[in-house]
Parts: sequence; C-alpha cells; structure tokens
Amino acid sequence: MLPYKSLIQIDRNAPVTLHIQVCNIFILLITNGTLQPSDILPSSRVLAELIGINRNTVKLAYEELISQGWAESIERKGIFVLSNLPIISKPQLPEPTLNKNVQEAFIWTNKFSNAIPSNNLHKADLAIDAGFPDVRLAPVDQLMREYRSISRKFYGKNFLKYGDSKGSQHLRSSLCDYLSNTRGLNVSSEQIIITKGSQMGIYLAAQLLLQPTDNIAVGISNYGFADDTFSYVGANLLRVPIDANGMDIDYLEALLTVKKIKAVYIIPHHHFPTAVTTSMERRLKLLKLAKEHRFAIIEDDYDFDFHYDNKPYLPLASIDHNHNVIYIGSISKTFAPALRIGFMIGPTAFVEAAASLRGLIDKQGDTLLEDAFAMMFDNGEMDRHFRKSLKIYKQRRNLFCEILKSEFNEVIEFEIPDGGLAVWSNFNQKIDLIKTAEEALKKGLYIENGHFYKNESFSANGMRMGFASLNESEMIAALGILKKVI
Amino acid sequence: MLPYKSLIQIDRNAPVTLHIQVCNIFILLITNGTLQPSDILPSSRVLAELIGINRNTVKLAYEELISQGWAESIERKGIFVLSNLPIISKPQLPEPTLNKNVQEAFIWTNKFSNAIPSNNLHKADLAIDAGFPDVRLAPVDQLMREYRSISRKFYGKNFLKYGDSKGSQHLRSSLCDYLSNTRGLNVSSEQIIITKGSQMGIYLAAQLLLQPTDNIAVGISNYGFADDTFSYVGANLLRVPIDANGMDIDYLEALLTVKKIKAVYIIPHHHFPTAVTTSMERRLKLLKLAKEHRFAIIEDDYDFDFHYDNKPYLPLASIDHNHNVIYIGSISKTFAPALRIGFMIGPTAFVEAAASLRGLIDKQGDTLLEDAFAMMFDNGEMDRHFRKSLKIYKQRRNLFCEILKSEFNEVIEFEIPDGGLAVWSNFNQKIDLIKTAEEALKKGLYIENGHFYKNESFSANGMRMGFASLNESEMIAALGILKKVI
Repeated sequence: MLPYKSLIQIDRNAPVTLHIQVCNIFILLITNGTLQPSDILPSSRVLAELIGINRNTVKLAYEELISQGWAESIERKGIFVLSNLPIISKPQLPEPTLNKNVQEAFIWTNKFSNAIPSNNLHKADLAIDAGFPDVRLAPVDQLMREYRSISRKFYGKNFLKYGDSKGSQHLRSSLCDYLSNTRGLNVSSEQIIITKGSQMGIYLAAQLLLQPTDNIAVGISNYGFADDTFSYVGANLLRVPIDANGMDIDYLEALLTVKKIKAVYIIPHHHFPTAVTTSMERRLKLLKLAKEHRFAIIEDDYDFDFHYDNKPYLPLASIDHNHNVIYIGSISKTFAPALRIGFMIGPTAFVEAAASLRGLIDKQGDTLLEDAFAMMFDNGEMDRHFRKSLKIYKQRRNLFCEILKSEFNEVIEFEIPDGGLAVWSNFNQKIDLIKTAEEALKKGLYIENGHFYKNESFSANGMRMGFASLNESEMIAALGILKKVI
Repeated sequence: MLPYKSLIQIDRNAPVTLHIQVCNIFILLITNGTLQPSDILPSSRVLAELIGINRNTVKLAYEELISQGWAESIERKGIFVLSNLPIISKPQLPEPTLNKNVQEAFIWTNKFSNAIPSNNLHKADLAIDAGFPDVRLAPVDQLMREYRSISRKFYGKNFLKYGDSKGSQHLRSSLCDYLSNTRGLNVSSEQIIITKGSQMGIYLAAQLLLQPTDNIAVGISNYGFADDTFSYVGANLLRVPIDANGMDIDYLEALLTVKKIKAVYIIPHHHFPTAVTTSMERRLKLLKLAKEHRFAIIEDDYDFDFHYDNKPYLPLASIDHNHNVIYIGSISKTFAPALRIGFMIGPTAFVEAAASLRGLIDKQGDTLLEDAFAMMFDNGEMDRHFRKSLKIYKQRRNLFCEILKSEFNEVIEFEIPDGGLAVWSNFNQKIDLIKTAEEALKKGLYIENGHFYKNESFSANGMRMGFASLNESEMIAALGILKKVI
C-alpha cells in the first residue's frame, strides 16, 4: 500500500470540505501516475484510521471520485482506479526554472528573451531616480476621502460594474475643463480615452497606427519604453537628430523625401531624456509636414504640469487645426506613479478604435479611481496639489543644481531645466557610470548607470538625475555619497 | 482691428496667470490664421482697456509672445506677428465626427471599424445581464478599511511608487496559498502575473503565443472577446464542436492530423456561453495531445469560485505535469467587475515575457488595490465574501430556474447550471430576440438580444441569462416583464 498517511495531508482550516480535499488528492495521485489504472484504493475504514478522519468522510470522497469518473466500485472487491484511463506517465520533475536552455513544453516565440534587469531602486535607503515625483506629497488622504464618499453615495454601486472602455465620463468631462484651462486645448469628451498612465497611450497609438515594417520617426535619443513599444509592433525606427531646439525638423523634411513615414513620436516639451524643448518654428513646420504627408504626430506631453518659470508652451495639439496630433498626457506622473491614470486625445474615430482595443486588453480602467480623480479636479484638490508640489520641486531643482554646480563642476555638465523633474547630466568620459552605480549602492545610494538612455545611435555617458523625490537633507546626503564614489 | 473683446476671454479663476492666458490666446489666433504673419497687434493701452485688465499684464503677455518666438517688437511702430512664420491656413471646421466617410488627417488602418454597439445595460431599471456578480454584495467597506490601513502604515509610501510588472509580491504569495487550498494548484509566485481581470490574461497569452496565420482551436460557441482577441493578433480560429461533455477532443485529435495548432483555448469548467463542463476523460486526453503536439492550452477558469453542489473539478493546470497549461483566473468576477484583478499562471519564462509585454502596455497594476486584496485574502475577508455570495447566488439560481420552468416552459429550454452566474437559455425559434430586447427595454428591463453569442459557425436563438445580480423581488419583476413581452 502507498504511504497514504504522508501523501494525504488535509487542512481543517481550508475553505474546501474535507471529502473534497481527499478526493482532490486522489485525483492528483492518479494524474501524476502514483496511482495507476486498475489500482485498488484502501478501504474506507483503513484510510479513515490512517489519516485520522471520519469514515463517512472517506466514503463521500470515494463517491465524489467515482462520480467525477476517476474510479469505479466493483461489488464485493472494493474501489479501483478506472482501468480505461488514458495512460499517464510518472510525474515530471518540477519546472526547470534555472536552465533556460531546456526545451519549453509548447512552442512560442519569446520576443522578450532579454531578462528584465533587476531593479535596485527600492533596495537602497536613498535614490536618485530618473525623475519621479515625491509620492509623500500625494494627497492620499483626500483621495481616500473621495473613495469613501463615492462608495457610500451611489446606491446600486455602478462604479463597481462594468463601465466604458473610454473611461469614466465624469473624469473625461473634468479633463476637458482642465485641458482647456491649462493648455488651451479644446476637445470634447468623445475625443478622450482615459488610459493607465501615458504608457498605455503610447501602446494603443502604436498598435493602431503601425503595421510591421512601417516607419516611425523618433529622436536620436528617446524614451526607451516608447522605442520598445514601436519595435514590439514591428515598426522601423528612423532616428532624427535632437539639438538644443528640439527635434531637427529640417532633417525630418529631408527624410520624408526618401521614406514614407507613418508617424512621428515627439516629446516637444522636455524631450526625454535630454529635457530640450522644441522651438515654436519647428513645431509649426512639423504640423505643416504632417498635413502634407498625412502622418500622425504622437505628442507625448507627460511633463506639461511641471514648469518652474511660468512659461508653459502650448502643446502641438492646441495649435493643430488639421487633427494630425494624437496627444498623450499623464496624471500618474503628477500624483503617484502607481495610481495609473493618463489620457490620449485624438480624432473621434481613432479614440473609438483605441477604446475597442482597450476592451480586448483589459476591458476598462478602475472607475472608482477615475471618479475620485474627477472629483479632485472639480473641487480644486488636484490644482492645490499641483501648485504645492510645483513650489517644492522648484526649490529642490534650485538646490540640486546649486550643489551640482559647486561640487560636481569638474565631472558633470548640465543645463538648469526650466521644467520637469530631472536634470540631464553628461558625465566626464573618464567616469565609469556602471562602476559608480555599483559603488554608490554599496553605500546605500541607488543611482542609474546610464544604460537605459543608450540605444543603437545614442551613447552619451549621461543620465537623468531626478531631484523631485528627495527632500533637502536627503538630497545633500545622496549627492554627498555620489561625490565620494566618483 | 479684430474683435478682441470677444476673442480674448480670460478666466480669473483659472490656474494659469492672466498674462499667460492672454499670450496663449494670441498664439491660438496666430496658429489658426485669424492673425496673419506681419499683422500688427493692438497697443497695450488699447487692449488693456478693451478686455479690462491691467496694462502691465498685457505688456507681460506681449513679452512672453516675443520670447516664445511668435511676435517681434519693431521700435516706434509696435508689436507685429513674426513675418517669417510658416504660412498657416485659415482654421478648418471642427472635426467632422458624424460623417465617417470623411478622409482622416493621417493614414491608419482601423481594425475596429465596426462601431461599438451602444450598451443599454445601465439604462434600464432592471437588467438580466450575461452573468455578472451583484456588486451590492462586494465588501467595499472592508476594502476601504484596508486602503486606509495601507495608506497610513507605510512610511515612504512604496505602494504609490513604480512597482513590479508582475504585480504585488504580497498578492502573488496570497494567491499561491489560495490556489493551493481551493484548486490543488501548487505554483511559486514566480509563475504568477497579476493581470487586470481575466481579459488581460487572454490578451497577453494571445500576443505571446500567436503570430499572424497561426492556428488556435476554440469552441464552436465561445467567449466572443477571446475570439476577438485571437483574431486581433491575426490568428486563424479553428472551431471545435462542443457537446454535453464539453469540447470534443476526438475531433481535435483528428484536426491535429491535418493542421498545426499553436494553442487551444478552453473554458473547461462552465464553457462560455453554454455552461457545459468538459469531462475528466477528455481533460486527460487533451493534456496528452498537448504534450505530443507541443501546443499550449489556455485554460480560462474565470468561473471556478462559483460551484453550488460542492463539486469543483480540479483545473487542467492542477493535473498538468508537462507545463502545457496557461491558467487564467479572475477575482473581478467574484468581487466587482470594475475592480480589475485577475491572474495568469504559466512556465516562468512565459510569465516573465508576459511581464515585459505588460510593461509596454501599462507598466504595472494598481499596487494599492493589489495589496488590499492580498490583505483580504490573508485575513479571511475574501473567503467570507466568497461563501456568503455563493450561498445567496445558489438561492437565486434556484428561484430563477423555478420561475423559468414554471412560467417559460413553452419558450425556453435550459439545464440547471451547477455553477456559474447564468443560465444558458435556448429560446423557441419563433421568438425574435432582437424585438424582445427592444420591447423589454421600453418596459424598463434590459435583456440581451443574443447577438453577442453568435459567430460564423454558431447561431443558436439563445442567450446567457444572469441570475446573480438580481435579488428576489427584482428577479420576479424582471421575469414578469419578460413574460409580458414574449
């Protein structure tokens, strides 16, 4: 007889009744080959004693096993594993997780075979990140208040039911007002889809605009996750130079004479990673080219809300009268990265298609969070938060740049950014950033190693240094460590 | 002079300073062609009087306009729109949203050109849905308590920062316990990715497994959003018959002799829409075929937690020893559709690739919600909720089926489902479901018209009738209306 006492471990606190637990264990023993077709099962009396449960429970388990078609009762002989079960092999060893060369059980093409680099960001006490907000400033208490208020107010609780793939109607309306007030961007709520952060906007736009081998123009340096998204859908990335005035639109114009371009991805405000702003003249020329060549402009304006010198440039979308611009923005960036709310604006038919695709991806967003954000826009909490954090970030930028200038003058070249949450820092070529990051981590400071910003045509020895998430004493401590390890 | 008084509308309560508002309006007037290159702007004195603001504000606005490169100051003449601006045409008419035949501004291929059918579900007082949970039962207060507790507890507020694309480590651990207890499914948290509902699991699996023209086997009748997702990635759907014992695996075996199949999508528990359960023998045979032919089985088990006769069949994933099964489940379905939490389980390399793709789609899930769900699994709230709703749904199923039997015997054919939240109802061919749904809506009852369940090879005059979201009096009222309109 098999060692049932150790094979059959039951849990009296589990949410499944005892007889079902016993039945399920027998099924596993049968399917993994421990019990073979035609094997006899122990009598209910014997098993009950062995594993210390009531005999009736064992009987119920056997009845269940028989009714599910795993076993049969033969009169005056006992209960047997069904003789005509498809033959089952002995159990395999556990999944080989370490040896990646082992053949997979099914055939698929891994487009992501590069392992995700382990992220040390949360492992260190201090971190100079790539330009993330300080989540300690996020008005979480106010958000919780709105959550409670919504969850109590609505009888029928529609906010818990399936909703619109375009997102909460309330938030779309509130965003219309907000975008009109802050950006002179006047759209109807039919032209907005609420996304999960700006990343989902980029993904949806890429899926809808690009077919394999289509060309998309991007900056020589560019936001890596946008590049990856365009590459994922099979598009061809055409790199356009970026200089102090942003994307080189004359170069793009020349490119258009030899290549058909489906879309241009641009971050006109503070180009990622180098934070340059595209000049007005180039913006107008880009719009003109888009109209002539019928390409789409994907305008990623994730950073709009952070301007320290009160000079927000109007987005391309606000001055586009031919509907060539797909405008992508984020509230996650302003509030808290893990509360993923962004938006994409475009021609109605495009936004409707995006909503259909979104339906296939994840049906819809979190209506509770969307409605709560809408209420915080309406009652001014969001605006108060923006103003408050803008003021704090400006102080942090100033202090950060002062320290960089006084303490790192020899090794870091940078421009004071007039917006955004990070300083693009060119390090002296002698400095090995990978080693610097490793040494810093040993001393409790996370700092990037510059790898994320490199691509096949951009290889600066630089990185974005985020100042927004560090308060004064943290900043002094963090840059103190960096100074030591350089 | 232009009618500046009406053109320049300022808002003293807007979060943007007055001079930036004025500047932005001028930019819009320039870019939409109202102001042309070399046009003169009104003097600051005149404009200030016209629109009723301080003259210095107008001066600041003009300075901003000049510094942004839109205008130039010519000594002793005034301020002029820059003469060398790229020529801009007169403003277009507003976006033509109604006429779909108008040429789009940019070139893209709309794979979703069928308009989304308008959803009347929330418009009626009463609804017989496709089998949704009653969100009024969801323990929202407990969820709010966990939200508050998390938002207060963690200094540094990591739950608001960027997190893991695989989802909250806490929730993945809690799910390991839950899956082991309820389904005998023993996996490590590395094999789990938290998704937004089961739909995201289907989407990720489809993107990773299928290339254009690959074959995937699905039921003759099938979950329409799964079909749409596979079609979206360009896969070929091969339809396999479904009978009273679930998917016809002998048919599949025959199919495999003539077609290469990349994956089989199956809902073995309560097949959608017809709610049949795949027999044990067929399950084992399917696993055997998968091993031989190296295809993946996408097991959609969204419905596992709803069994009224205490006979949960073990998932395929629990008895699969060759790692052929990708297992997809949902908590949204059990809790509330708008709180989108699901999971996908598979070989570690596959789950890692899914996490990479998810990073491109929306980076990550909502850590706050994920952690709160984890705490509700750990402290037993989730289990209490499952038990409580199961008891209520069983009563509702019984009443619903009794009424169907006594009042609709002539017109509806159905089996009492031993699980799930809906009854698959075959209507008498004489009954026009589209007309029935229209008539019902006029009387305040939403009911489906059967369209969603049809496909190129399945055309039953039937629908799923959800009983779970209706309490006793609502159910009686709803079926009363239905009786009247039939």
